[in-house]
Amino acid sequence: MTVSTASITRVPGFRAVGVTCGIKQSGNPDLALVLAEQPCAAAAVFTQDIFKAAPVLYDIDLLKRTGGRLQAVVINAGNANAITGEQGRRDAEHMARLTEAACGLPADSAFVMSTGVIGHRLPMAKIESGIRQAAELIRTDAGTQGCDAVRAIMTTDLAPKEAFAQTMIGDRPVRIGGMVKGSGMIHPNMATLLGVIATDAAIEPAPLAELLRDVVGKTFNRVTVDGDTSTNDTLLLLASGQAGRAPVTTAQSSELESFSKALTDLCIDLAKAIARDGEGATKLIEITIRGAATETEAETAAKTVATSPLFKAAMFGNDPNWGRALAAIGRSGARVDPVQTSLWVGDYHLVEHGEPVVFDVVAAHDWLAKQSEVRLVADLGVGQSEATVWTCDFSYKYVEINAEYHT
Amino acid sequence: MTVSTASITRVPGFRAVGVTCGIKQSGNPDLALVLAEQPCAAAAVFTQDIFKAAPVLYDIDLLKRTGGRLQAVVINAGNANAITGEQGRRDAEHMARLTEAACGLPADSAFVMSTGVIGHRLPMAKIESGIRQAAELIRTDAGTQGCDAVRAIMTTDLAPKEAFAQTMIGDRPVRIGGMVKGSGMIHPNMATLLGVIATDAAIEPAPLAELLRDVVGKTFNRVTVDGDTSTNDTLLLLASGQAGRAPVTTAQSSELESFSKALTDLCIDLAKAIARDGEGATKLIEITIRGAATETEAETAAKTVATSPLFKAAMFGNDPNWGRALAAIGRSGARVDPVQTSLWVGDYHLVEHGEPVVFDVVAAHDWLAKQSEVRLVADLGVGQSEATVWTCDFSYKYVEINAEYHT
Repeated sequence: MTVSTASITRVPGFRAVGVTCGIKQSGNPDLALVLAEQPCAAAAVFTQDIFKAAPVLYDIDLLKRTGGRLQAVVINAGNANAITGEQGRRDAEHMARLTEAACGLPADSAFVMSTGVIGHRLPMAKIESGIRQAAELIRTDAGTQGCDAVRAIMTTDLAPKEAFAQTMIGDRPVRIGGMVKGSGMIHPNMATLLGVIATDAAIEPAPLAELLRDVVGKTFNRVTVDGDTSTNDTLLLLASGQAGRAPVTTAQSSELESFSKALTDLCIDLAKAIARDGEGATKLIEITIRGAATETEAETAAKTVATSPLFKAAMFGNDPNWGRALAAIGRSGARVDPVQTSLWVGDYHLVEHGEPVVFDVVAAHDWLAKQSEVRLVADLGVGQSEATVWTCDFSYKYVEINAEYHT
Repeated sequence: MTVSTASITRVPGFRAVGVTCGIKQSGNPDLALVLAEQPCAAAAVFTQDIFKAAPVLYDIDLLKRTGGRLQAVVINAGNANAITGEQGRRDAEHMARLTEAACGLPADSAFVMSTGVIGHRLPMAKIESGIRQAAELIRTDAGTQGCDAVRAIMTTDLAPKEAFAQTMIGDRPVRIGGMVKGSGMIHPNMATLLGVIATDAAIEPAPLAELLRDVVGKTFNRVTVDGDTSTNDTLLLLASGQAGRAPVTTAQSSELESFSKALTDLCIDLAKAIARDGEGATKLIEITIRGAATETEAETAAKTVATSPLFKAAMFGNDPNWGRALAAIGRSGARVDPVQTSLWVGDYHLVEHGEPVVFDVVAAHDWLAKQSEVRLVADLGVGQSEATVWTCDFSYKYVEINAEYHT
């Protein structure tokens, strides 16, 4: 798999632009538009937070109304349009209508996403001007502004996050391009952050939705920055069908094996990019729990370590403090055999069958200080299941970002 | 209720000293001994973490063996004797034996607690010298060193935490004195941190244990600093019976009403002292969830806010960021009616029936900057139940403490 800028626009049939309409105080691009040449099969997963943002509520209903057919996506950053009451729901719908009008599309063709501060009304005059700008640009430009689209959806992100893959469905080569944003309030539950993935594969909406749910469960739902689930998490998968051939009608089709693998790898790359760019992060941390009774328990134990402020602060301090990792596993609810538990950090074997292993603490500290990626493996000693979760360390910068990022 | 130094030694029949035996690198007192004049009824609650420390495993068994009768408590700080394997279990037992020998007590009279770094073997030569010193001091001194005992159990604590209360059982005045430690890895589950509470009340072990469980559920189990449960959490309640009269034999006795209330208030004071002294804390934060379907759901929602790094960092930044609090409630699993939810921070009414209330953000920021205690109230709009949880804000200092506090 290769990663490039403007990944979405490398998929035949998709254009994307980003513009500045003044929502972000920084003056950075803050509105993105993705437009397909023709209606696409669409599937999405959303936040499970009860306080779903207005665009999330709008989109859930939109996918039901249309049976999973869309042609455009409009995304703003700097304002989440979340917990904005009845007015917020009207604003989300209006944002869709403005996009459809500006792109010359019929009603119910546009999907809406917002990210940023919670509890403030969307600045609709700015949104309207941004949508007009974006639609104009996308008409006059063949889609070379795709990289600006990725930048326009960033909030506290330091790096744009994109991925691109090529694979086959049957005898047809197909392409998949994705872009996501997310750095804080990252602990997706059945969905994630904001993300758009485009493919020219021909897959019907129902199998597309099933495939997306499966893949998200093992990728985006296994990344966490701070344990906080967003009100706006949305991941959208659009399939234009322009690669040709009759659409795949069932997720169980053997023709989807290679596509499913490519989509999973692409989502893991994007999920890891989010953890690597977690607010204030200095390290990407991969936590694998094996020897668990079930995969769910392995995932729970891994996520408990991945959200432990104590463990994450130790990683920031380059401290091979395995005690904090085991204490977290011990409170996770996963079944564990304390006298069969083993643990490794990188190449350091630190715990063997419940007993501490003597190791060179200074050497381990110096080794950790040089790593930008650290792998922790713990074996719970009770079964054969495993799961991997990605997170980052916890630094002064995380506190600074979230103490200073004011309402 | 009054708070004083040396609270435990204000209870007739209890002496306590603290000494320095060189476990802490700082040279601060690091071993405490509490000695009762006669055997006491004893009840304790312990961590629910699967990786229970060696002293916890020893004490659980000790209370079973003795049916809840004890006369001494030995506590060291600087080394948790947790995840230290078979050797750690032998060291905990040896620590009890050394204490009993030094105090001239029969076997199975001494309770053992340890706190500090996980995964390192106890320095038994230092422990032995500390126990001898402490036993010698307690013999020659009537117990005026009680305040040193409180200091000897501190790790990252900045302040000693004690409380004292007087109440009645039937017609007899009784006294309750308690000391606790805890600042990080604080998220007790059915127990807490390290704590010793002494009373001269006459209560049998069985009702004492029942009373302690009930009180802890609404006090120490509702405080959190970082969501991380310790491997060593232990709270011990000793009742000497020296206040006289026949012992209370059932927790349902109407004579215990006033005692139970006094014990609850004392535990709330100690729990709040822990949150106020949370690692790096600048503010004590009290979170009350009301209008919940059940008390358990109210507690879950309150704890989810209380462990949200985003919300806690906002409090450090004096940012009235209610969106982060509602997002946390929304992912907590508690039933919530989004359009009936209301929220207050201090006197600021910020959300009314799911709609943001317009308020003076600058004034609210300035007000928060002046507070050392902040109260957040959220009404979930679905029932009549409520619960209160105590926590603190999340500062640079928390990260510093836990990045630098090396294994």
